[in-house]
Amino acid sequence: MNTAIVRYVLGYVLRIESLLMTLPIVTALIYQESQGWAYVIVALVCFFLGTLLSLKKPKSSLFYLKEGCVTTALSWIVMSVFGCFPFMITKEIPSFFDAFFETVSGFTTTGSSILTDVEAVSHTSLIWRSFTHWTGGMGVLVFLLAIIPLTGGSNINLMKAESPGPSVGKLVPRIKSSAQILYLIYIGMTLLQIALLLCTKMPVFDTLCMTFGSAGTGGFGVRNDSAASYTIAQQWIIGVFCMLFGVNFNFYYFLLHKQPKKSLAMEEVRWYFIIILFSTLTIFSRILSHVGNIERALRQAFFQVASIITTTGFSSVNFNKWDSVSKMILVTLMFIGACAGSTGGGLKVSRVVILFKTFIKEIVSYIHPKSVKKIKMDGETVEHDVIRSTNVYFVTYFMIFVISLFIICFDGKDLITSFTAVAATFNNIGPGLGVVGPAGNFHSMSNLSKLVLSFDMLAGRLELFPMLILFTPEIWTETFIAKKKHREHRLQMAKKAMANCRQAHS
Amino acid sequence: MNTAIVRYVLGYVLRIESLLMTLPIVTALIYQESQGWAYVIVALVCFFLGTLLSLKKPKSSLFYLKEGCVTTALSWIVMSVFGCFPFMITKEIPSFFDAFFETVSGFTTTGSSILTDVEAVSHTSLIWRSFTHWTGGMGVLVFLLAIIPLTGGSNINLMKAESPGPSVGKLVPRIKSSAQILYLIYIGMTLLQIALLLCTKMPVFDTLCMTFGSAGTGGFGVRNDSAASYTIAQQWIIGVFCMLFGVNFNFYYFLLHKQPKKSLAMEEVRWYFIIILFSTLTIFSRILSHVGNIERALRQAFFQVASIITTTGFSSVNFNKWDSVSKMILVTLMFIGACAGSTGGGLKVSRVVILFKTFIKEIVSYIHPKSVKKIKMDGETVEHDVIRSTNVYFVTYFMIFVISLFIICFDGKDLITSFTAVAATFNNIGPGLGVVGPAGNFHSMSNLSKLVLSFDMLAGRLELFPMLILFTPEIWTETFIAKKKHREHRLQMAKKAMANCRQAHS
Repeated sequence: MNTAIVRYVLGYVLRIESLLMTLPIVTALIYQESQGWAYVIVALVCFFLGTLLSLKKPKSSLFYLKEGCVTTALSWIVMSVFGCFPFMITKEIPSFFDAFFETVSGFTTTGSSILTDVEAVSHTSLIWRSFTHWTGGMGVLVFLLAIIPLTGGSNINLMKAESPGPSVGKLVPRIKSSAQILYLIYIGMTLLQIALLLCTKMPVFDTLCMTFGSAGTGGFGVRNDSAASYTIAQQWIIGVFCMLFGVNFNFYYFLLHKQPKKSLAMEEVRWYFIIILFSTLTIFSRILSHVGNIERALRQAFFQVASIITTTGFSSVNFNKWDSVSKMILVTLMFIGACAGSTGGGLKVSRVVILFKTFIKEIVSYIHPKSVKKIKMDGETVEHDVIRSTNVYFVTYFMIFVISLFIICFDGKDLITSFTAVAATFNNIGPGLGVVGPAGNFHSMSNLSKLVLSFDMLAGRLELFPMLILFTPEIWTETFIAKKKHREHRLQMAKKAMANCRQAHS
Repeated sequence: MNTAIVRYVLGYVLRIESLLMTLPIVTALIYQESQGWAYVIVALVCFFLGTLLSLKKPKSSLFYLKEGCVTTALSWIVMSVFGCFPFMITKEIPSFFDAFFETVSGFTTTGSSILTDVEAVSHTSLIWRSFTHWTGGMGVLVFLLAIIPLTGGSNINLMKAESPGPSVGKLVPRIKSSAQILYLIYIGMTLLQIALLLCTKMPVFDTLCMTFGSAGTGGFGVRNDSAASYTIAQQWIIGVFCMLFGVNFNFYYFLLHKQPKKSLAMEEVRWYFIIILFSTLTIFSRILSHVGNIERALRQAFFQVASIITTTGFSSVNFNKWDSVSKMILVTLMFIGACAGSTGGGLKVSRVVILFKTFIKEIVSYIHPKSVKKIKMDGETVEHDVIRSTNVYFVTYFMIFVISLFIICFDGKDLITSFTAVAATFNNIGPGLGVVGPAGNFHSMSNLSKLVLSFDMLAGRLELFPMLILFTPEIWTETFIAKKKHREHRLQMAKKAMANCRQAHS
């Protein structure tokens, strides 16, 4: 494995993290909060360590899928570890396991929290917490690709490892330009949401945090009741933007380049909107009699649907109290997730559509054994490899899910709590049902469970394989063996040189 | 579609069912119960109807996979419908939905019940109820293949559609002989269990019913507390036989033919025993302090594990009250199920093993992209087609599961009850958790839910596709179109003949 390039990229990631921390530092200055010092210290440490690591440029910038996976997984872990230090230093979250869980939850845009009283936390830490969502939403490595001069063709493996969805489409031939376009769209939409929320007279601080939360489809709020106490207009804006950030970003790219036909032809996006419409109307009909007001029932239904399918996790109402059909719909949406190529999590709509088509194809092949119908998506045949990897993804997903659930069960919580705790973190949503429902939090979980759920959040965000590969013993033994061989080789060369030297002297 | 052969086989199935009803009729004679008349009436109806249907031998006995699926699905539905009439006539289960649910639950060896008081039911109906387990365990069509003279090579499609597991291995080249061998092993083991239970002085009636229940891995008992009130020895015997009936029958075939090496080389069977051992020991350690007695704790753990993994569903204790780890293990076992080629249900151990190996292979391929490792089972490479169909099976399984769960949720039961109700019926187990737990039953479900769960039981028993294909509109429109064409063709021929006739006369 090319460890030099891994080290090099990690150094860059740390330097970016130190840069990101200027936002909470500025906030501390504005609100005159002493917590700012913690961020200054950590930012400096990150900067020096980062510079140290990226000092020596690697000889080869070759990137195979393996390196891509390892780099990505390590980057996210390193970012979360350093990102959680300020919480510990300010003693707002004194335990490492809690602080790590909270930061992973931030970067992976999950939004699950161990905080029992959000409003007691300083503005400095709250904005950092929400800003991790925004950073994690589009991905740090994609950002890296947009700015740093990593030459060598195979950077696509970095982007592949970090981008959500079954297949990464390069928007334009050069990866650097693709990454830049994605970030430009992302920034543009974020600014639009900020502007709209400010028009409704939402306080600037709330506006920033809620926008970061919906742009990254994360879900950290700044009030104990999440989004329940905002005005009607504000709830609609947040709900609609959650939905928009869950759309495949290629959709916007095509729109910007005046190719509306190509946009509308995207099957995944169409299905995404159909699912949202259907779910909203069903829940609306179930809660209408109970809520009494048409607008309020529609808003509550839509807000929760948009928030859950995009795996944001804001809540405008305690849906734990809804009837079982509505709850069942929400749990199903948790698993479906948003579009591929968006900031949302879950299985992704396109994967579910491919799975569904595989299923239909199989039934047809029973009736017409000789048919050779191909699975199509957006009018084009889906490659056999994509179908296979979708199936494998599904199986892997299921296995990790069951194993995690097993470990969580040792906490002794009821099955609904355990089940939805795993579902909510693994799909990067935030709240589950039961103890970890919208009105509860993950504070009462054991440290082991918090670690497992942190793993699930990272695995969910990075689409399973990077995290799994990082924990494969082979990767490490292989690296050690290669290094050992290298050392032995150099030793032999040295011995040879010595022998030659001696021969020359004698 | 060759509808003639479907009709012909259905006729045979009805005649077999009338034959099977002699057992409750004899029981009625012994216990002097008037309920016997209901069975006499239904048996006569079945016999006459069956004879009528199978009177005309079909011209072609060609059987494609499609015909195999449709015949199998229809046979099971017809058997269940006629099998439930006696319950309605005797008014022991007056509602059709309830009686149908109970009979489907019997034939599919599920063991879920809507009866609130089993002990109030007559001996006649109880033995019929348990006997459906024994019949359904090995399969009616396999029985048919063992006895009736269906010539034409493609009968394997019938057996394929009815036998559990990813691939049907013919034990010997002739299907008829394979089916006979399976039934001989089945009958032999059943007799052995009866003999052993009689040695422990269990009443003959209980012995027969409990043996039918464990042989078919069904789970209908004759006491309200299922198996809790039997003696220690009796519980061990029942538990061990449940386990044995969950083993792939090829294992016994090889043993009988003195090929113990081949038996022991069966990977699926080894995994099956490892899973049972591991689960038993874990649950044992969790309940020991609570139960207090080593033998009792071990027996309770083993009995429940053997009963759930084979999808039998007998209970010797109310495991609804166990801790969440133990409950989680049981729920996982529900899904894993028994070995392929046994009488048990669930996903099947071999499928789970193949899924697990696919998952490992995928991780390896990330690390070594050029590796071409093949998935092996029992030392032999697993065909690509088997892997693909296993993946597809898994996806299909999941879809039916979610859709069923959705409909059940409209009953307004809590999520655990709804979830385990679907899991317990779809995997042909019997009891779930919550309201449908070992101490509860399915009586309070709505009629729609009972129908959906009946569908799930049949789909689970017949390995999904036959039931799905039966409900594909194409199958029916195609048949109608073919018939219409046939009629039109005959009409034209007649017209031609008339014209010829006229010409000849003029």
